[in-house]
Amino acid sequence: MELLKERIRRDGVVKKGNVLKVDSFLNHQMDIQLFNEIGKEFKRRFAACPINKILTIEASGIGIACIAAQYFDVPVVFAKKAQSINIDGDVYSTKIESFTHKKVYDVIVSKKFLNENDRVLIIDDFLANGCALAGLIDLVQSAGAVIEGIGIVVEKGFQNGGDLIRSKGVRLESLAIIDGMNDETGEITFRD
Amino acid sequence: MELLKERIRRDGVVKKGNVLKVDSFLNHQMDIQLFNEIGKEFKRRFAACPINKILTIEASGIGIACIAAQYFDVPVVFAKKAQSINIDGDVYSTKIESFTHKKVYDVIVSKKFLNENDRVLIIDDFLANGCALAGLIDLVQSAGAVIEGIGIVVEKGFQNGGDLIRSKGVRLESLAIIDGMNDETGEITFRD
Repeated sequence: MELLKERIRRDGVVKKGNVLKVDSFLNHQMDIQLFNEIGKEFKRRFAACPINKILTIEASGIGIACIAAQYFDVPVVFAKKAQSINIDGDVYSTKIESFTHKKVYDVIVSKKFLNENDRVLIIDDFLANGCALAGLIDLVQSAGAVIEGIGIVVEKGFQNGGDLIRSKGVRLESLAIIDGMNDETGEITFRD
Repeated sequence: MELLKERIRRDGVVKKGNVLKVDSFLNHQMDIQLFNEIGKEFKRRFAACPINKILTIEASGIGIACIAAQYFDVPVVFAKKAQSINIDGDVYSTKIESFTHKKVYDVIVSKKFLNENDRVLIIDDFLANGCALAGLIDLVQSAGAVIEGIGIVVEKGFQNGGDLIRSKGVRLESLAIIDGMNDETGEITFRD
């Protein structure tokens, strides 16, 4: 998605340790016009799929998922990190390791909102090692629902998450795949 | 907002301890069509305000804020709970006590995304004791920005958060204000 790559080139900041900061438009401050273009592009790529629900994970997936959901005309469910007293005990749960926060989260979805009749599009902002996605896939499979596909905004193609997911036979569409970053020059290399 | 009250009456579940579960349409599964009506209503109420940014807090405020932002044509910034290595040190921070999760969070916003030129609409899903809102107000004031108003989807009018915020002279618009709930009959009483 050329518009997205241009935006990453212009406003993304490469930091040491293969960190790409896109917090000015994607995951802290959110450019809703860009999100609409992202939503349209997900719809274009998954137009043939009988999707009836979008699943994402808090926090930074939620905005993109909600804007995209307008193009699919379906509800969004977000998986929650850690137990809350406002969540029924009746949940699907999985564990996700976060490298960003250096800890393991329990992630849950209420059984009321995911079941064997659901045909799910999973949406998230980033794909690096694939831990979050593996957890979301696990939740969908626990519910007996079908994964129609996965839509990712930015994939770090030099980490192994994308290969891992694709090797499972799940359709994965990443709108921008980064093959390399240089924190000294700020250069970002996208996959064609 | 009549549509919202009807939806709360129909799908809200009253639990012991003054807990109202609206997780089937508001804060776990999210009804994006309803969110659009909520967004339009916020725009109608704040149409005269020169808002250039919406501020919310993760996680359940984000979806509503993003959909509403389409009607204001402004970016959304969400305040983050706890420090992440992907956030610069250059942040405004405050502490918010969560009664739901029984703990105190550090909540931060990058200084890059909130400054003295901003005229902010704060949006959140729930207002009960007002702790989260007080934290968001604190962040906006730390940045020297102007609070144009606060938009809340569901206010628990029998808790003191609303009075607390209104006594500060901040314009607060809650789309549904609940004056009482009965967990035995399931009855919900709205303020007129």
